[in-house]
Amino acid sequence: MSAPARTGPDAAASGVETEGPLEDTIRLRVRYTEVDAMGYLHHSRFLQYFEMGRVELLRARGVRYADLERQGVFFVVVRAEVAFRQPARYDEEIDLTTREVRRTHVKIEHEYEVRRAGSVLATGKTTIACVGRDGRPMAIPGSI
Amino acid sequence: MSAPARTGPDAAASGVETEGPLEDTIRLRVRYTEVDAMGYLHHSRFLQYFEMGRVELLRARGVRYADLERQGVFFVVVRAEVAFRQPARYDEEIDLTTREVRRTHVKIEHEYEVRRAGSVLATGKTTIACVGRDGRPMAIPGSI
Amino acid sequence: MSAPARTGPDAAASGVETEGPLEDTIRLRVRYTEVDAMGYLHHSRFLQYFEMGRVELLRARGVRYADLERQGVFFVVVRAEVAFRQPARYDEEIDLTTREVRRTHVKIEHEYEVRRAGSVLATGKTTIACVGRDGRPMAIPGSI
Amino acid sequence: MSAPARTGPDAAASGVETEGPLEDTIRLRVRYTEVDAMGYLHHSRFLQYFEMGRVELLRARGVRYADLERQGVFFVVVRAEVAFRQPARYDEEIDLTTREVRRTHVKIEHEYEVRRAGSVLATGKTTIACVGRDGRPMAIPGSI
Repeated sequence: MSAPARTGPDAAASGVETEGPLEDTIRLRVRYTEVDAMGYLHHSRFLQYFEMGRVELLRARGVRYADLERQGVFFVVVRAEVAFRQPARYDEEIDLTTREVRRTHVKIEHEYEVRRAGSVLATGKTTIACVGRDGRPMAIPGSI
Repeated sequence: MSAPARTGPDAAASGVETEGPLEDTIRLRVRYTEVDAMGYLHHSRFLQYFEMGRVELLRARGVRYADLERQGVFFVVVRAEVAFRQPARYDEEIDLTTREVRRTHVKIEHEYEVRRAGSVLATGKTTIACVGRDGRPMAIPGSI
Repeated sequence: MSAPARTGPDAAASGVETEGPLEDTIRLRVRYTEVDAMGYLHHSRFLQYFEMGRVELLRARGVRYADLERQGVFFVVVRAEVAFRQPARYDEEIDLTTREVRRTHVKIEHEYEVRRAGSVLATGKTTIACVGRDGRPMAIPGSI
Repeated sequence: MSAPARTGPDAAASGVETEGPLEDTIRLRVRYTEVDAMGYLHHSRFLQYFEMGRVELLRARGVRYADLERQGVFFVVVRAEVAFRQPARYDEEIDLTTREVRRTHVKIEHEYEVRRAGSVLATGKTTIACVGRDGRPMAIPGSI
């Protein structure tokens, strides 16, 4: 990974050093199959968008999640919360910022912000845990 | 609605009387298209299950959500949180209990418990708000 | 499997004997997350319903698809077609009839009919092929 | 629309003139929530991708489908077929080419090809019909 080593504030606090960017923003266009009968992006979709945000943050750090799974390293969501302020509608382009805010040897916490043209639509927070192919907790590999 | 009038503890606390059962349990079988590459029910699906739980609780109280929408009464999720303890897998039958725990004139809070054979897989909590066809807040109709 | 041995007309034609019922009907209620902004069941969902129809037909024959996958036996869809006549809407109950119409040593053809209150909403046809964990074609196990 | 007027071979055959490109290719990355327990893009997702292909082809012709719906112009799928040759997997980038091949006053036929690195994964064909807000057939507006 060519990105300079960085240490996030909370990562420092938790004593685990991490490399590469701790924040990433992606743009998504709301798909027709993602909206409900009100024409709004279904609220469950935000968790799917957050997942894409984590995958792209990982990619920005030089790691493909698909490769991790092939190596038997999985991440499962153990906790999630979302606050919805305004709806997103079909075909709108929205920006999702994903930020790693805390890390222990087995868990990572992320925070999310979804915006449309600068206006915040939703915020969220998740905790993911590293598990092996058998679903049992394992230490997050150093490469991540 | 033939069900006897009931008042939940929190409904009482909030001063809004409600009729009919305040809790309902439904059984769901995990579908193939709902599991991910790990073979686990995708975590975003729990929010979709919770939605089904709310719809069925409403039906148990004699109200069809589809009818409400036709009348211009919608509910949007303004807050959601889920704690995941154990995965649910393809084709497993799981029980979802949905409970109304608090109600104001425009919002309802529900709590959820997902179990498989008595073992708790996940718990959750949502707040929904009543809105009109234009997306603006409105008072929850007395019939609900 | 306690069901009496049966041989379907096309199975006979293809020379492969099969056991148990060759047709099954299930009832489904259209979910909120399955409808689109028009309030119609999204057309892609019919393929997901057909899949559920195949799984339940298999179950009616005494076989759980989840068990097959654990044994390294998978089925992939190699061809699908659907004719849509009338929309299904949120919360409507619909009946799906799944019928095995042809079988070779590696492939099975099914036909589908989706009805609401006796009126046909859609018809479809799929061909599935048996593959191993590596995705390569394999003979359909005798137990199915 | 600044694109020069064009008439596709089949459009000519059907006597209906159309403007703008009749073919468009988009790149999509397979999302985690779109793959099944085999790690393959679920076959029903191809119909959702085709829909995105049609939307983007329309956009390439200067029309936003979201605007059409606001004007009371909808398109419903009346027929679809897909031939699946090879699976697409999580995180793979695939190219989807959408081509309008025939048009009458109320219906449009499209053909699709999904490729990964030049190799064809699937082909498909759909027929869509123009309907009003009430679901009744209407003539395709001249602007499209």
